Amino acid sequence: MSLATPVLEGNRLALARLLTQIENDTEAGRVALNELYPYTGKAHLVGVTGAPGTGKSSLVNQLARYYRHPPETETALKIGIVAVDPSSPFTGGAILGDRVRMRDLAGDPGVFIRSMASRGSLGGLATTTASIVQVMDAAGFEMILIETVGAGQAEVEIARLAHTTLVIEAPGLGDDIQAIKAGILEIADILVINKADRPGVENAERALRGNLELAHPSKRLINMYSETAHHAAPTVASQHFQGENSELIWSPPILKTIATEGVGIAEVGLEILRHYQYLVDSGELKRREKARLSAELDLLLQATLVQRWRDSIPDNRYQHVLGQIVERKLSPWQAVQRLLSQST
Amino acid sequence: MSLATPVLEGNRLALARLLTQIENDTEAGRVALNELYPYTGKAHLVGVTGAPGTGKSSLVNQLARYYRHPPETETALKIGIVAVDPSSPFTGGAILGDRVRMRDLAGDPGVFIRSMASRGSLGGLATTTASIVQVMDAAGFEMILIETVGAGQAEVEIARLAHTTLVIEAPGLGDDIQAIKAGILEIADILVINKADRPGVENAERALRGNLELAHPSKRLINMYSETAHHAAPTVASQHFQGENSELIWSPPILKTIATEGVGIAEVGLEILRHYQYLVDSGELKRREKARLSAELDLLLQATLVQRWRDSIPDNRYQHVLGQIVERKLSPWQAVQRLLSQST
Repeated sequence: MSLATPVLEGNRLALARLLTQIENDTEAGRVALNELYPYTGKAHLVGVTGAPGTGKSSLVNQLARYYRHPPETETALKIGIVAVDPSSPFTGGAILGDRVRMRDLAGDPGVFIRSMASRGSLGGLATTTASIVQVMDAAGFEMILIETVGAGQAEVEIARLAHTTLVIEAPGLGDDIQAIKAGILEIADILVINKADRPGVENAERALRGNLELAHPSKRLINMYSETAHHAAPTVASQHFQGENSELIWSPPILKTIATEGVGIAEVGLEILRHYQYLVDSGELKRREKARLSAELDLLLQATLVQRWRDSIPDNRYQHVLGQIVERKLSPWQAVQRLLSQST
Repeated sequence: MSLATPVLEGNRLALARLLTQIENDTEAGRVALNELYPYTGKAHLVGVTGAPGTGKSSLVNQLARYYRHPPETETALKIGIVAVDPSSPFTGGAILGDRVRMRDLAGDPGVFIRSMASRGSLGGLATTTASIVQVMDAAGFEMILIETVGAGQAEVEIARLAHTTLVIEAPGLGDDIQAIKAGILEIADILVINKADRPGVENAERALRGNLELAHPSKRLINMYSETAHHAAPTVASQHFQGENSELIWSPPILKTIATEGVGIAEVGLEILRHYQYLVDSGELKRREKARLSAELDLLLQATLVQRWRDSIPDNRYQHVLGQIVERKLSPWQAVQRLLSQST
């Protein structure tokens, strides 16, 4: 029997098993994923990223606790957490995090946590993360927090899987950090300065505010869209959504927290919900959803094309061509031409 | 006329032009790259990576200056610098760095600097970096310093392009940085604690030494090799190199610097040369060179396969299938099956 049915019924063990199937990229996992896909698209996907040392994990834990025990007027949300650690590609990381969290949120059936280390290629990691998020979505988790370490391409790939992206900073993380902010700020919907009791918090806030003006949010969306522009001209998309309140503009707020003490968490929690409302009201949710799924499709296509080709070519032919590259008889480009013309 | 000839003759303007052709992925660039490839394989490729705030750029500049003006008994090396900033995938980063460096090393014909921002996919960035390094190698630069920001997958991809990898740390960059170190240490041949005049340097050194024992260097090489194991069993490789001094083992040293004041630079400079000697003596250079070229070939194959497929499929077919994913009528996996069965 497919694992999809018990997952839809809320069976946590089946959910954990299916996620393992998906991480191992099994046929059974793919079958269940296809069956679950029609039940997806309901969860609010929230990406949380930032450099090491900013205290992301504490913040994510506190946010989960906030949504599980909200103020009286609100209803608790079922929360999924996916912690992605692309920093250890060779042996795999993300081991400790799980255990620390377990103690914190253990026993709450409204919370499900999954840690992932990088396996193989980056495309593979982003693809697997997307699939894991889909399964949690189908399983009825209403908000899924996707946590990534760092500030590079990996984080951006994963940010593209989210509806709302939080970028976490902390005071005093070095002086050339400004350089990286300009890039990472482009993906931020909400900025959080954590460890706000540390010296340098005013400087950090001033620097962020300055850089924020450079990375104008409306520009970001255009750029994000144009990354998939080989498939659709941006003009088509803007026409398509012209009926919506496209004049609504989101200005990324800067919030201060001390996650370890729970300070400022409610404000961040509310801001995330407010951003979701903005996404709905402006029609931006549909646009992001399409860009998100397009990026996911591209990643899957890429992985599948490479796999198919690898299966089609004998190993000794690859080794022979590699040997000619090492001996400088063929350039890598020439080798690609040769390998691809032989296999098709 | 191909740009390859003037590049081989040492024409800097032709070199700069060719690098632009390569960044833009033109046909002329590829032709020149093929022509230059037989002249490559002579340079010592040195990767320099580390989190933002560690002062990598200063260190790279100081190393370049050291090799240009070595102690009397040594001859100056021609130095290429490739600065890769994968932090800003949407608008491109790595703009300021160049100008700061220009002032520093300007007018020295034995130094050539190229900054690159991420464009498109990570695979694309690593591919372009590899090509740029090849051109500098063919152009006669004897050591090429490849500088990357961060500590994620991007850095590791780029580290695999290098013979010798330096990982730069700095004191006081946050308390959960230990977690990331375990991963990044696996790729380190030489560890540098920069900003060694700051408080916390002893703690940083102690933490590094502890983590270094976990990330045993010999294990790393086996893992690195097994990443290409779908093409060659590690046993074949180890047999192949059995004649070499395979009992030679490299223990990554930990060095302290204050790059802005030039403190400790000579020690790092000498250690890099000592590592190269180890690579030659142990036979490890051949092994890394093969793994490096295999990784490069894989990246190029992947990029080419995806490009070919995209060119082969009409845009409206892709859009139609994407629409069905958005409406939850097809899962992304089902969409891939459909798109690939139609196109072949």
